[in-house]
Amino acid sequence: MTALAPNSTIGIIGGGQLGRMLAMAAAHLGYQTVILEPDPNAPAAQVANDQIIAAYDDEIALESLADQCDVVTYEFENVPSAAIEALEKVIPVYPGAQALKISQDRLLEKQMAHGIGAKTAGFHAVNSLKDLEDGVAQTGLPAILKTRRLGYDGKGQVKIDNMDELPSAFEAMAGQDAILEAFVNFDCEVSVIAARAIDGSFEAFDVAENVHKHHILHTSTIPANVNESVKATAIKYAQKIAEHLNYVGVFAVEFFVENANSDGFNICVNEIAPRVHNSGHWTEAACVVSQFEQHIRAISGLALSTAKRHSDCVMLNLIGDDVNDLEKHAKDEKAKIHLYGKLEARPGRKMGHVTFLK
Amino acid sequence: MTALAPNSTIGIIGGGQLGRMLAMAAAHLGYQTVILEPDPNAPAAQVANDQIIAAYDDEIALESLADQCDVVTYEFENVPSAAIEALEKVIPVYPGAQALKISQDRLLEKQMAHGIGAKTAGFHAVNSLKDLEDGVAQTGLPAILKTRRLGYDGKGQVKIDNMDELPSAFEAMAGQDAILEAFVNFDCEVSVIAARAIDGSFEAFDVAENVHKHHILHTSTIPANVNESVKATAIKYAQKIAEHLNYVGVFAVEFFVENANSDGFNICVNEIAPRVHNSGHWTEAACVVSQFEQHIRAISGLALSTAKRHSDCVMLNLIGDDVNDLEKHAKDEKAKIHLYGKLEARPGRKMGHVTFLK
Repeated sequence: MTALAPNSTIGIIGGGQLGRMLAMAAAHLGYQTVILEPDPNAPAAQVANDQIIAAYDDEIALESLADQCDVVTYEFENVPSAAIEALEKVIPVYPGAQALKISQDRLLEKQMAHGIGAKTAGFHAVNSLKDLEDGVAQTGLPAILKTRRLGYDGKGQVKIDNMDELPSAFEAMAGQDAILEAFVNFDCEVSVIAARAIDGSFEAFDVAENVHKHHILHTSTIPANVNESVKATAIKYAQKIAEHLNYVGVFAVEFFVENANSDGFNICVNEIAPRVHNSGHWTEAACVVSQFEQHIRAISGLALSTAKRHSDCVMLNLIGDDVNDLEKHAKDEKAKIHLYGKLEARPGRKMGHVTFLK
Repeated sequence: MTALAPNSTIGIIGGGQLGRMLAMAAAHLGYQTVILEPDPNAPAAQVANDQIIAAYDDEIALESLADQCDVVTYEFENVPSAAIEALEKVIPVYPGAQALKISQDRLLEKQMAHGIGAKTAGFHAVNSLKDLEDGVAQTGLPAILKTRRLGYDGKGQVKIDNMDELPSAFEAMAGQDAILEAFVNFDCEVSVIAARAIDGSFEAFDVAENVHKHHILHTSTIPANVNESVKATAIKYAQKIAEHLNYVGVFAVEFFVENANSDGFNICVNEIAPRVHNSGHWTEAACVVSQFEQHIRAISGLALSTAKRHSDCVMLNLIGDDVNDLEKHAKDEKAKIHLYGKLEARPGRKMGHVTFLK
């Protein structure tokens, strides 16, 4: 296939910071961008050529997006898969609806992980209180009950410590399909950010070690302080997942690791994100080409660039009022600052990040 | 002074590729941008928050720009200095009108260079044919007659080889004030890209060695293949010029060098550009912070970052149809590509650049 010519137009569904960074990467490569996003002040629209202000599943808006663009992508996995399926009939969409559907559903995701030979935490599908009781008999307690779909940053999940919490936990799912997951006592969480191109070529960035605070990513450290075999295994699983899904674009796989510094390590797939990922933001500071540009290259039919990094680094998320540390971080000559243009610094809101090169 | 808070707005006069790269750097730091530019399809407007579509000296547009912004800057030295003077009365403008006026005028520029102890090619102000004859008696032939103002990329200048060309050369100036410059037989051209902050702090990027084709920059190579004393002298002059002008922002000084690899070198100031500069585009690929972000930091009151580079590199301009080499360059894993979103690839038009890291 031929790559998109300069000035071709890329549609991006979703106007948050990931869409913003994708739009800037597209601009670097000479591509135009149109953002589909209901919020008129969205971070991505500020740096894009155009915005369609409409809901993600608005049929007329999706038609208009297809008309204006040469390829469509999205910045978050909660875009309705029916919208992507409809778009796919008229325009190339990467990643495709099949990859999206699986990564939208914690149950399908875990089943797929087992299918490619990876482990996950023990899990049990929960559509009734009876399912939940059966599940707990299998996973033990504590365990975590999660909605199968639409959860992120700890939303839509409940930790269960005692048997008498089962009814309230089940009610908290509000009738949505759920999944019970065994509580994994992991030493650390790592993630792989990788890209797969239309021709099947594959590039994985170095494994990041992630620390969360209040269920939100706090830092990613590269290189991860884990056994080299942990890294190789994580990347191997990421590649198998990409091939299984015939994936095109950048994606993230999060893993839980026990005994991460020993040859007797135990690694579980936690989650797959069919998009650029917060734990890959460091790539813009420490690699020739960032995860954002790598994604744009993949979906445009350009060759992937190398994922090698030139520096060790730590990425720190700026949450809420942390955005006001701009002036402080500007004084650190090893700091690469990136803010998202969000007008209001609400608590828990991702406002930006800083990558400290070592 | 306190730095601009996140979401403050920066006005940029001029909507070309330099304005575009400034707007993206501002967005990285969480600042909003408004572009003043008559062309509705300008590269900068594509990635900015807003555009005022009007002439650079449109009074109502300038008022509106001042109303919407917290600080104003510009991407090119041919903005009318009267416009900057008017703006300065109501809003901080960096660089200031004084620096702009001098760098707009080849005669004042050369006089200033002598004032800070630097050499230039021999020169003579030309307002009449008689002036031109007197000038040639001083500079010898060949020599170059240039308009004092508004020339760039070889426009507005005539090389004179023989005495009988004097009348036609003078006529080519079309009544504009002109300057005759001795023809310097230089080995090489180098440039310094540096930044000076509001508090007077100063950071110079490494000296670039520049090769032109058809009067347009072709490549910049870093490090320059010149004697270390040449580099130190060039940076020393750049700092003196910045201090003399009480300059705020990023600027470029181009130098001609004879015997560049010997201690008996001869270095002349050729030109000062009160703005980010084509020969500094490599900084985005080889430094933590690019010339564009450095400029935004300077005019926003943020600390300057280090100008140290992490890699040697060569920047190649993509002129006209060179933009179609996108796919080829994408296959080079040492190449950092940057296209400008220009819709038409006219011959001689700067369409993008590629920095090849070593």
